[in-house]
Amino acid sequence: MDKNDVCKMLQRIRDENPLVHNITNTVVTNFTANGLLAVGASPVMANAPEEAADMAKIASSLVLNIGTLNGQTVESMILAGMSANELDVPVIFDPVGAGATRFRTESAQTIMSKVKVAVIRGNAAEIANVIGEKWEIKGVDAGASEGNVLTLATEAARKLNCIVVITGKEDVASDGTTSYVVANGHPLLTKVTGTGCLLTSVIGAFAGVEKDVLKASTAALMFYGVAAEKAVEKTYGQGTGSFQIEFLNQLSLVGDKDLYRMGSFKIVQ
Amino acid sequence: MDKNDVCKMLQRIRDENPLVHNITNTVVTNFTANGLLAVGASPVMANAPEEAADMAKIASSLVLNIGTLNGQTVESMILAGMSANELDVPVIFDPVGAGATRFRTESAQTIMSKVKVAVIRGNAAEIANVIGEKWEIKGVDAGASEGNVLTLATEAARKLNCIVVITGKEDVASDGTTSYVVANGHPLLTKVTGTGCLLTSVIGAFAGVEKDVLKASTAALMFYGVAAEKAVEKTYGQGTGSFQIEFLNQLSLVGDKDLYRMGSFKIVQ
Amino acid sequence: MDKNDVCKMLQRIRDENPLVHNITNTVVTNFTANGLLAVGASPVMANAPEEAADMAKIASSLVLNIGTLNGQTVESMILAGMSANELDVPVIFDPVGAGATRFRTESAQTIMSKVKVAVIRGNAAEIANVIGEKWEIKGVDAGASEGNVLTLATEAARKLNCIVVITGKEDVASDGTTSYVVANGHPLLTKVTGTGCLLTSVIGAFAGVEKDVLKASTAALMFYGVAAEKAVEKTYGQGTGSFQIEFLNQLSLVGDKDLYRMGSFKIVQ
Repeated sequence: MDKNDVCKMLQRIRDENPLVHNITNTVVTNFTANGLLAVGASPVMANAPEEAADMAKIASSLVLNIGTLNGQTVESMILAGMSANELDVPVIFDPVGAGATRFRTESAQTIMSKVKVAVIRGNAAEIANVIGEKWEIKGVDAGASEGNVLTLATEAARKLNCIVVITGKEDVASDGTTSYVVANGHPLLTKVTGTGCLLTSVIGAFAGVEKDVLKASTAALMFYGVAAEKAVEKTYGQGTGSFQIEFLNQLSLVGDKDLYRMGSFKIVQ
Repeated sequence: MDKNDVCKMLQRIRDENPLVHNITNTVVTNFTANGLLAVGASPVMANAPEEAADMAKIASSLVLNIGTLNGQTVESMILAGMSANELDVPVIFDPVGAGATRFRTESAQTIMSKVKVAVIRGNAAEIANVIGEKWEIKGVDAGASEGNVLTLATEAARKLNCIVVITGKEDVASDGTTSYVVANGHPLLTKVTGTGCLLTSVIGAFAGVEKDVLKASTAALMFYGVAAEKAVEKTYGQGTGSFQIEFLNQLSLVGDKDLYRMGSFKIVQ
Repeated sequence: MDKNDVCKMLQRIRDENPLVHNITNTVVTNFTANGLLAVGASPVMANAPEEAADMAKIASSLVLNIGTLNGQTVESMILAGMSANELDVPVIFDPVGAGATRFRTESAQTIMSKVKVAVIRGNAAEIANVIGEKWEIKGVDAGASEGNVLTLATEAARKLNCIVVITGKEDVASDGTTSYVVANGHPLLTKVTGTGCLLTSVIGAFAGVEKDVLKASTAALMFYGVAAEKAVEKTYGQGTGSFQIEFLNQLSLVGDKDLYRMGSFKIVQ
């Protein structure tokens, strides 16, 4: 896989506008929809149990996010996920806050046990909690060395039998054997709510056009990180509001030239 | 009806701040509220069955939007709609995604059968689905000729016995006999989530000050389209994030001079 | 209390990133989270009855906001509030729209009767309704003289046995004996949805680092008002969209120099 593959996937998203069905939290719905539109995908939100399964069937990918879950959304997620599985629509899962409350940890595990997930994306603490390992939450972003995160991603991919994406200082995508480490991105992303959630949905957009979901995930990470770096360049020192808007701009503007010039990832086997 | 009427309605909104009660989807609540505030209206969101009817009674108009409906919101919409009907508060209905799932199509029809709707606004596919006609969804915005949309709007207005507004390449408002075609607007609107939903709420703002809802709808279409064109002018090439913010700016800034200079609509009988 | 205290509290928020647990309305979730991140706090939204109590236990403060309440959120608020009370986590309450419908007024009173609230923040009409007094709603922001609002705040603080913050032309924070009047802020805040709600959450951020909640509330009012004034300065005449984004910027940028130069409050005993 090389940068040319990333460019081709991005072009396909902009040409084909894959329908990404999101069952996500109430904090990020608007930002997620605008981010997906900026990238070139076609977002739809439908979280009622009455229609979740129907909507998943016509989608190119399904994104499940437990950021503000409740009993009803868990039910919808399972219905939509099982429906997506029937038609081989890839399911991308974001276990927001797994480990913070018992309800989240258990809901994440329930969803993973009933739905065949293609990609799970979280920070190190969330992924560790999903596979039942302890992880020192406070120190994750600051203290985790690349080695630890790589090990965690590989182990989780083997246990969960899916692609695992862990984001933090460096981002890792792994299928348990092959891993990609992506160096793009910027800490300012942590100062805008929903940037992790939107990334999960952008992985959904890439997985909507590329069947190899490990490559799709890696491409999404690189593209997303480059857009963040460009947004920081353009709004340096202006504050988090301007960064947020410029980031949406860059999601709609980043092109091949930017990806070739700024993109940075390596393969680890 | 001429441009002077549009200017007068806009002035009344800014002077009287009509209370627009919205029961809308979770993706666009914030954008809708900020858009209505920018125009000069006073937005309120209240979607619990326990209070929907009470809130509708004190509103100048009621906007119902099924973008992320569930069983409970359908119940609230019917309660609020019947309450509005009792006091002649105009009800504006946005059947988001009618046709995409059976639940949406049926919910749209249930609401239309229990609530007397003053204006229904959607794209051609949504309106066609509400009246039980087939419409090739993929081709709507690109392929539909003005003639087809005019015919659809006229036919739907007669069948549904209300004002029908169809938006797309050109926008049409029809009461089944008289139709207005508005040429303002810009394709970039489709790259920001909720611009259709907000338009429906802005029609609510105009209907909150003007009893002739065909004229109110046409005025809203022209005003909204001019604001979009001005926002494109000011942010050309900057990306969809900047366009979104500038569009909110223009909703608060567009005045008589802009409406006279840029506004464009014609009557078809 | 002097400006130096405000600066110190702000610094503590930026150093310690207090976790502010919000159960708030669907219109302002995104804006609230981004506003809290800009200030330096760490926002979390969790409104399911299954986890509300657990999340409140690990928070530095709990913010309850009834802007789009329904039966389930009222239940969650009471569970979270009682859980916070057990561990002395301060609870900040925003009775949005109390008085507008019977459901809101009664829900506000139910919450106040079951949860020990540290601070309640609203406009004059909302606070008056919570304590069962009549207040001419239409005239509040325009007509209320400072004297009336001071009297209302003092009386409400005594009746409710908590800190009362009333915002409007001038802002007042009172414990029933000592009151602070803050002169910062700008009317443009009323043109962006959720600025009142976000203020309540920012009071939560200050209360997360300062045990004296009257001082914390006053500091939050001054800081927030200064950020608004700076945002108006930078975006004058550009419209409400740009103001909203610049306000988020200023929440992340306002520092000691701004607070010393522009901050304005007086004590009334």
